[in-house]
Amino acid sequence: MIVVLRKEATAEEIKAVIERLHEFGFRTHVSEGVEKTIIGAIGEKTADKIQRLEMTPGVEKIVPILQPYKLAGREFKATGSTVAVGPVVFGGKKVPVIAGPCAVESEEQMLTIAKAVAKSGAAMLRGGAYKPRTSPYSFQGLEKAGLEILAEAKRVTGLPVVTEVVNPGDVEQVAAVADMFQIGARNMQNYALLRAVGLSSKPVMLKRGLSATITEWLMAAEYILSSGNNDVVLCERGIRTYETETRNTLDLSAVPVIHEISHLPVIVDPSHGTGKWRLVLPMSKAAVAAGADGLMVEVHHKPEEAMSDGPQSLRPENFHEMMEQIAAVAAAVGREI
Amino acid sequence: MIVVLRKEATAEEIKAVIERLHEFGFRTHVSEGVEKTIIGAIGEKTADKIQRLEMTPGVEKIVPILQPYKLAGREFKATGSTVAVGPVVFGGKKVPVIAGPCAVESEEQMLTIAKAVAKSGAAMLRGGAYKPRTSPYSFQGLEKAGLEILAEAKRVTGLPVVTEVVNPGDVEQVAAVADMFQIGARNMQNYALLRAVGLSSKPVMLKRGLSATITEWLMAAEYILSSGNNDVVLCERGIRTYETETRNTLDLSAVPVIHEISHLPVIVDPSHGTGKWRLVLPMSKAAVAAGADGLMVEVHHKPEEAMSDGPQSLRPENFHEMMEQIAAVAAAVGREI
Amino acid sequence: MIVVLRKEATAEEIKAVIERLHEFGFRTHVSEGVEKTIIGAIGEKTADKIQRLEMTPGVEKIVPILQPYKLAGREFKATGSTVAVGPVVFGGKKVPVIAGPCAVESEEQMLTIAKAVAKSGAAMLRGGAYKPRTSPYSFQGLEKAGLEILAEAKRVTGLPVVTEVVNPGDVEQVAAVADMFQIGARNMQNYALLRAVGLSSKPVMLKRGLSATITEWLMAAEYILSSGNNDVVLCERGIRTYETETRNTLDLSAVPVIHEISHLPVIVDPSHGTGKWRLVLPMSKAAVAAGADGLMVEVHHKPEEAMSDGPQSLRPENFHEMMEQIAAVAAAVGREI
Amino acid sequence: MIVVLRKEATAEEIKAVIERLHEFGFRTHVSEGVEKTIIGAIGEKTADKIQRLEMTPGVEKIVPILQPYKLAGREFKATGSTVAVGPVVFGGKKVPVIAGPCAVESEEQMLTIAKAVAKSGAAMLRGGAYKPRTSPYSFQGLEKAGLEILAEAKRVTGLPVVTEVVNPGDVEQVAAVADMFQIGARNMQNYALLRAVGLSSKPVMLKRGLSATITEWLMAAEYILSSGNNDVVLCERGIRTYETETRNTLDLSAVPVIHEISHLPVIVDPSHGTGKWRLVLPMSKAAVAAGADGLMVEVHHKPEEAMSDGPQSLRPENFHEMMEQIAAVAAAVGREI
Repeated sequence: MIVVLRKEATAEEIKAVIERLHEFGFRTHVSEGVEKTIIGAIGEKTADKIQRLEMTPGVEKIVPILQPYKLAGREFKATGSTVAVGPVVFGGKKVPVIAGPCAVESEEQMLTIAKAVAKSGAAMLRGGAYKPRTSPYSFQGLEKAGLEILAEAKRVTGLPVVTEVVNPGDVEQVAAVADMFQIGARNMQNYALLRAVGLSSKPVMLKRGLSATITEWLMAAEYILSSGNNDVVLCERGIRTYETETRNTLDLSAVPVIHEISHLPVIVDPSHGTGKWRLVLPMSKAAVAAGADGLMVEVHHKPEEAMSDGPQSLRPENFHEMMEQIAAVAAAVGREI
Repeated sequence: MIVVLRKEATAEEIKAVIERLHEFGFRTHVSEGVEKTIIGAIGEKTADKIQRLEMTPGVEKIVPILQPYKLAGREFKATGSTVAVGPVVFGGKKVPVIAGPCAVESEEQMLTIAKAVAKSGAAMLRGGAYKPRTSPYSFQGLEKAGLEILAEAKRVTGLPVVTEVVNPGDVEQVAAVADMFQIGARNMQNYALLRAVGLSSKPVMLKRGLSATITEWLMAAEYILSSGNNDVVLCERGIRTYETETRNTLDLSAVPVIHEISHLPVIVDPSHGTGKWRLVLPMSKAAVAAGADGLMVEVHHKPEEAMSDGPQSLRPENFHEMMEQIAAVAAAVGREI
Repeated sequence: MIVVLRKEATAEEIKAVIERLHEFGFRTHVSEGVEKTIIGAIGEKTADKIQRLEMTPGVEKIVPILQPYKLAGREFKATGSTVAVGPVVFGGKKVPVIAGPCAVESEEQMLTIAKAVAKSGAAMLRGGAYKPRTSPYSFQGLEKAGLEILAEAKRVTGLPVVTEVVNPGDVEQVAAVADMFQIGARNMQNYALLRAVGLSSKPVMLKRGLSATITEWLMAAEYILSSGNNDVVLCERGIRTYETETRNTLDLSAVPVIHEISHLPVIVDPSHGTGKWRLVLPMSKAAVAAGADGLMVEVHHKPEEAMSDGPQSLRPENFHEMMEQIAAVAAAVGREI
Repeated sequence: MIVVLRKEATAEEIKAVIERLHEFGFRTHVSEGVEKTIIGAIGEKTADKIQRLEMTPGVEKIVPILQPYKLAGREFKATGSTVAVGPVVFGGKKVPVIAGPCAVESEEQMLTIAKAVAKSGAAMLRGGAYKPRTSPYSFQGLEKAGLEILAEAKRVTGLPVVTEVVNPGDVEQVAAVADMFQIGARNMQNYALLRAVGLSSKPVMLKRGLSATITEWLMAAEYILSSGNNDVVLCERGIRTYETETRNTLDLSAVPVIHEISHLPVIVDPSHGTGKWRLVLPMSKAAVAAGADGLMVEVHHKPEEAMSDGPQSLRPENFHEMMEQIAAVAAAVGREI
């Protein structure tokens, strides 16, 4: 890292800063500029050390050179990782599509949708049993009963299931049914929850927080990885901006950026990313073209009856059309659905 | 609410929409415009109903007229609420100042700071025992041992204590020491946690999420209120924007906005709001002038040794100066510290 | 539009509001709810009238139902428009690619790049003669001499040219060489400039402002259209967000959104949209997959010598590769390059 | 600045980078870390050089150490500047208040308001003759006739006048009446306009762009300063965020930040900053408490008839009340109105 000293720093202050750096185990190189002196410091930096150095008299600011993530970084592991969820692989040539309703509402609803998406080529099922909702007066999910319905949908279709967990205390219960945990955007920095799934042996899909930087997202992955669970799939689902035509702003550039700086697979959720089912088809194609390692889309056979997220849910026939169209795009970029 | 129909909606579609509204218990008034037909719908709306109506054929969009929060709204309770934490009252003429370190690091550190801020007139102590940190490699708090130190600081100074709780499973343990729970910005939409503190009888300080709208913030408060706990104090602590000169952008306008639309007291945290101790003094004065019902500031006797947030912590002597200066501003706006 | 009255509005106030609406030429429908009264108002609304009504005693807020743009809207013109620039057509089956350096630096530079991109299949040339730069100490463009070089590049390659105009006083001079004006992001709301190009007969490429909503962008187009110039091509080039891994956040959802609400063609600039040449290739493919009606990319034969935007410029060989890859994607979505 | 080399950079690449730095006139210090090599480069950097170096093989990124502004920086001039507009001084002990309507609508309107605000203690008048409006169908200002009315208001009240200029071609005409130019937020990066007022001898009030960073704002000031005009007053007027309760998010932290890094005076416009007249009073007090060197507020005697910005305009009686209340706050922070 680089320690930039204040213009008016005294020789003593500079000396004290250098001593402090040595104490912290850094090797130092001093460069005296016309206006300012800077110190290159080589060693193991942590956020704590940076903050303490920033408060040392004479220091103007600290400029980190290395990224704060380690296990999630491409510098730690040069080749892309693959994450297997049963027979489904994220990060390979195939681009698996996860589909299903926002929330599990009933056995009839879940099975109808599950069979339809399976028929159209979905690789995995989704469906929320525990639903984090902005309003306490909205449907909060069927909870345990929802998990049982998911188990049934899995049996019927043979497809693995991903579902959200929202409370560290529920991890075990959810793991009994889910093939993959979903950590939702609102919980991306719920560290108690990240550690709990990090201690599990099930793969984790980590959604990007509503206003998380890519670095913060990778640091959240780092919590899971450093707890011993290597099977993390990132999911871009739109970020918060000032634009209101879409529910969120889907940041597709995050896909090639993640591929450059991290070895983890990254998928895209165009349903939450846009909030409007009409935009799901074009943005699915765009996601595949940008190199996404998978898609997750919301499908409902009766969106006008859905208990949540109807406006962004595809009907099964639109989903079928989407599957056909993304297959063509995937082929154009050397991938397969 | 208003249901706006598509320009090309057929008479049958319109009829079906109206029937659906009646089914949902709404009374309706239809206005046929030159370009579009709109339906005024009077009744109890919920987010679920809105989404389902949005997906009904012929509907272009739904425009809600009433706010989604109820218990948190000024329309529910016209007079401002006060929240008492022992002898300290938020929402009255006095503007209590909460002070202390970001994290409890040791008994010696906590007591030194606690005594200093008590002497300068702080009304309450703060100090984190459970620390949600962006990096898994950063100091994560002393946890249970930290709570014991807080209890000691409380005994020594006689001041009530606020501390953060991050896991629903910890609520009971934290309640044994804390006079007020803090829900941090990262957990503003951790609904399992909101419900857990909502079931407790201790007051709750609810920080605004990093990119939460004021409506979402009030909806988070609604989770606590609707669980039976009326003692919620909101805390503005800066929102995420593109500006990088400050850690966050302190949104002081939120103070008079909250006072207009909600009856809940609202305090300001200029330490997290700016991320730089030099900005804490001017922004504290600005917060009081804007009508804040309290302040929360980070103080550390050795910021250059602090295990977290040193750069935004005031030294005790700066805190003392701040207390004097905000007293003058408070008097100018008819309040007291 | 809908006029929402305050809960405490008196009968007289409501009467006065209705009279005012009639004065402004609206027909009204009153709906009395349990909590609030609302008035549906049918007629020609303008921003001015809305603001005046908002200030009328008893009024809580105005909710517009129709969009503020007229000529730019899909409701005004149901079929997509095409804009021809010489033989190049935006908005048809073909997806034209505009390529060239950020700034015209010299004849040798411009001709080298122009010939290279023409050979790889570019449909139009770009190159800035007047450069709006953040710093007054940065290269500001060759101005008139730059225009002459562009004219030469046009002669040599036979390709039409688009170049930026930044001052209403320069419109005539630029029109002598350019086949299409570019209005840059920083000038999207420079209304004197929009009117000046609106009075010209040359097509205009209107870049989205750095933090412009899609509505504001269409309102800027409305300035040009309402001045008499129908040939407007919109260009998405990334918006400002908190994310710093990319120079801007490329909002590809804007492409299908524009196609839904406007009849104007929309192209994408992945060079400014990402700021990093490595991201240009994947995001070009994504843009075409999302339905973009064209692309504009920066190409430089020696990016490490470029006087501006080198880091986001493709080398001619990368551009060639991009052209091949986007052709495959275009075919997959029923378009051609 | 610091040049960070790629992990895989070869010895030859590093040598070539160093040679390039020497060519550009930098002195260099090389630090070899465990993972990466970095080069400290001392010399005159420009944005152009940075971009070219970034594209040199082996270079990962450039980290600038010094700020890009020079004349606007506190390092260039250590003491705060004062800007005099006739008898009014920005940057001294006094906190001048500029008041008047958003737009000049008629002589009667302007004189009524001007007399009222003068009586309540306003130091300067405002009023727009050239109005940049989002919609081409909104009132665009009285233009030349508006300037004449402003001249009359000035004669009648004896107060200096600030008014917006939007076209470089209008600068001379506006200068005949205005005592100070206003550059609006939409034109903050209209460099042709900045240069035009930079060549004038009249003071300039430079509003912050809607999504401008503080650095970009100072770079815009740098355009004016480097053209020879030293009399620049900055004006914070709110930035664009996702929050919709307020028109913009007033970034009051910008006041102490500007005071720390620049010597230029900075005032606050709470009318545009919030968009709601009810918020103007608390935010005016907050601005003064934060250290603002002046205020600019919109006042209209009949906001419900105003041709623009009625909802954010104070009535004269509210303005009077504001003047009394901010006087008390100013006294509390050692200033005077």
